[in-house]
Amino acid sequence: MIRDLTDAEARAALPCKWGAVPEGTVPAWVAEMDLAPPEPVTDAVAEAVRRGVAGYAPFGDGGIGAALAGFASRHWGWEVPPDAAVPTADVVSGIRLALEVLCPPGPVVVPLPCYPPFREVVALSGREPVWVRTDPDSPDAALDLAAVERALDAGARTVLLCNPHNPLGRVPRRGELEGLRDLAARYGARVVSDEIHGPLTLPGATFTPYLSVDPEGIAVTSVSKSFNTAGLHCAAVVALEADDRSRLWSVPTSQNHGYSPLGMIAATVAWTECDDWLASLVARLDDQRAVLSELLAEHLPLARTRPLEATYLAWLDLRAHGVDDPAAAALGHGVRLASGQLYEPGLAGHLRLNLATTPERLGLAVTRLAAALSP
Amino acid sequence: MIRDLTDAEARAALPCKWGAVPEGTVPAWVAEMDLAPPEPVTDAVAEAVRRGVAGYAPFGDGGIGAALAGFASRHWGWEVPPDAAVPTADVVSGIRLALEVLCPPGPVVVPLPCYPPFREVVALSGREPVWVRTDPDSPDAALDLAAVERALDAGARTVLLCNPHNPLGRVPRRGELEGLRDLAARYGARVVSDEIHGPLTLPGATFTPYLSVDPEGIAVTSVSKSFNTAGLHCAAVVALEADDRSRLWSVPTSQNHGYSPLGMIAATVAWTECDDWLASLVARLDDQRAVLSELLAEHLPLARTRPLEATYLAWLDLRAHGVDDPAAAALGHGVRLASGQLYEPGLAGHLRLNLATTPERLGLAVTRLAAALSP
Repeated sequence: MIRDLTDAEARAALPCKWGAVPEGTVPAWVAEMDLAPPEPVTDAVAEAVRRGVAGYAPFGDGGIGAALAGFASRHWGWEVPPDAAVPTADVVSGIRLALEVLCPPGPVVVPLPCYPPFREVVALSGREPVWVRTDPDSPDAALDLAAVERALDAGARTVLLCNPHNPLGRVPRRGELEGLRDLAARYGARVVSDEIHGPLTLPGATFTPYLSVDPEGIAVTSVSKSFNTAGLHCAAVVALEADDRSRLWSVPTSQNHGYSPLGMIAATVAWTECDDWLASLVARLDDQRAVLSELLAEHLPLARTRPLEATYLAWLDLRAHGVDDPAAAALGHGVRLASGQLYEPGLAGHLRLNLATTPERLGLAVTRLAAALSP
Repeated sequence: MIRDLTDAEARAALPCKWGAVPEGTVPAWVAEMDLAPPEPVTDAVAEAVRRGVAGYAPFGDGGIGAALAGFASRHWGWEVPPDAAVPTADVVSGIRLALEVLCPPGPVVVPLPCYPPFREVVALSGREPVWVRTDPDSPDAALDLAAVERALDAGARTVLLCNPHNPLGRVPRRGELEGLRDLAARYGARVVSDEIHGPLTLPGATFTPYLSVDPEGIAVTSVSKSFNTAGLHCAAVVALEADDRSRLWSVPTSQNHGYSPLGMIAATVAWTECDDWLASLVARLDDQRAVLSELLAEHLPLARTRPLEATYLAWLDLRAHGVDDPAAAALGHGVRLASGQLYEPGLAGHLRLNLATTPERLGLAVTRLAAALSP
C-alpha cells in the first residue's frame, strides 16, 4: 500500500528535500517522506485540477472540520465538534495567526530544542520568547513544568507546545498536559499546541490531543506531515470556544488567505478515506525505528537516543564523538542530515535524522554518518 | 481554445465565486473567470500531482524568473533578467513582504478606490496609510501626482501602484509612470507596483512595466489572474537591485513560505506555453467589453463608465440612480456584484462588475442590475 519512490522519482516529486543535495547523496534532513502520498488523495487532487479547480478557496471550511472530527473520533476517541476548525495555510501560519489574534499580550514560552519556525513566528509576531530548555543530559525529555511556571510567573502569557515533539520524538503524557493546563489556567495564559505529528504516534505510545485536556487550548494540525502533502497548503486551527473561532474567521482576508482549495480536498480525503494507508505507514515507520536501532548499535554504538515514540525524525546525541556539528561532517560523506544547531542554537553534537525512507537508504545514511565520525 | 464552464462546472471549479451565491444567481463579483485555465497548465499540474509532487517548494525560483523574462520580452519588449524574480505565495503576500523587507519606514500612499487587500496589508505591516483619491467626477482617472507629492513631502516613503488599475480598469501612461519615478527619486521613496493585470491589457492600450521606467521600483506579479489559477499559490516579487533580492531571499522561512511547487509549475507553463491561449482570452474580453457597452446603452443609459483599458473588471458609476449601494439592491434580483464601498469606504453609487464570463451571463447580470435600479 505504501509506494516508495525511486531516487529519480523522489528527485522529481520532492524538489526541496532531494533537489538540494547532489546525486548520490542521501537526503535525510527535511521532514518529507520518500514515498507517494495516498492514491485517494492524489487522485482527488489531480481530478479536481482537471475539472478546473485552481481558484480561490471556498468560504467556510470546505468540509475539513467534519473530516477532522471523524478522524479524531476514530483514532483518538476525541469527540471534537465538526465546526471547531478554521482553515489556514499550514501549521506555522496557524501558530502565527493564533499569536496575532487569540493569545494575550506578553512573552511566549518556546521549548528548546524546537522546530525552527517556532522561534521565527514568535519574532514575526513581535513577541518576546522565553526559552524552556530540555537538558540533553536530563533523564527524561518531558516539558519542564517548573520552568514553564517560572516563565508564566515572570509575565509570559502563551506557551507553544509541540505534541508530539519535533525534534525529540516524544509524546507528552496526559498527566503532563493536565499539569500544563492547570498552570495556564492559574496565570491566564493560552497554550498553542502543534499536533501535526499526532497521527504518526508509533506503537507503544498514546497521543493525547491537548484540547481533550484543556478546552481553552488552541491546536493547530494538518494532514501535510502524516500524508506527505506539505505543498498543498491546508491546515486547521482548532478552537473549542466559539468566540475564538469568530475572531479567527473575522480577520482581514489578507491575514489568513494562504490555504488552497486543493489542500482542502487533500485534507478531507486524507482524514476520511486513508486510515488503511496510515496504518501501513505507521507499521513502516515502526519497522524503520527498529532498523535504526540495529544500525546504531552496530555502526554508532556511542550515539545516544531517547525512545522514538512518534514522528519519523530521530534525534541523535553524538557528543561522545567530540564533533561540534556532525551533520556538517556527514555531508562530505554523502548524507545530508539536519544539524542540531537548527533546533537549538549553540547545541553541539546533535542532529536530526529522517527515517521515512527505505531500509536501504537508512542504512546508507547511518553508515555514512558513522564513516564521517570515525577517527 | 477558451473553454467556458457550464453553471454546474463553474460551481464545482470556483467554490469561492460560485459557492457563495444561491443557484440561479449570476456571480459577477469575485475576480475569477468562468472558464477553465489553459490545458497545458492543468495537464502539467495534474501530472505533477500524480507523480507525487505535493511537498515543499524547491529552493530557488523553480524556473519562474526565466519564464517571466521570456514572457515580458515577447509581450512588452521588456528585458528583465531571469534572476530578478523572488517567489512568494500571491501578489498580496508579495506586497506585504516588500513593505516588511524593502520599503523605508514611514507612511504608505494608497490610491483610492483600491483592491481591499491594499488597505489590509498596509495595516498588517503597521504602516500609516495616506489616501490619494480619484474623484469620480474628475475628467481623468490618472493617479494624482500632485497629491502623491504632497504625501511624500509630508513623510510618506512608499507608494502602492496598481498597474493596470483594479477596479478602475485604467492603464497608466508611460509619462505618468516617469513622473511617479521622479517623485520617488526626489523623496527617497519606493514604488511597489501590482502588475497582476498586465497581461490583460486590452486592444488600444499599452501596458508599461513600471520597472522598465524605474529600475528602483518593486513589481509584484503572478499568472493567477490572467490564467485563472489564484488557488495554486505562486507569485513573483521582481526587483532589479541585487541587494533587494538578497534581502528577500534571506527572510526567515516562515515569512515567505506560502508558495507551492504546483503554483511554480503553473507559472512556468503559463508564462512559456500559453501565448495563444492568452491571445484568445484577450480577444474574448475585448468582445465582452463591447457587449457590455451595448448592454449598458440599452438597459442602463444613466450608468457612467470610463474606458475599460485592461482587466475584466468594469467600474460602474450608478449615482444617477440615487441608490447608495446598487450591488446590494441587485443581489435581490439575481446577480451578485461587488459594492463600490469595498474599494473605497463611503463611496456611494458605484460597483465593480466582472465580465469574464459568457455573453449570456453578462446579459443576465446587466438586465438584472437594471431591474433592481428601475423605479
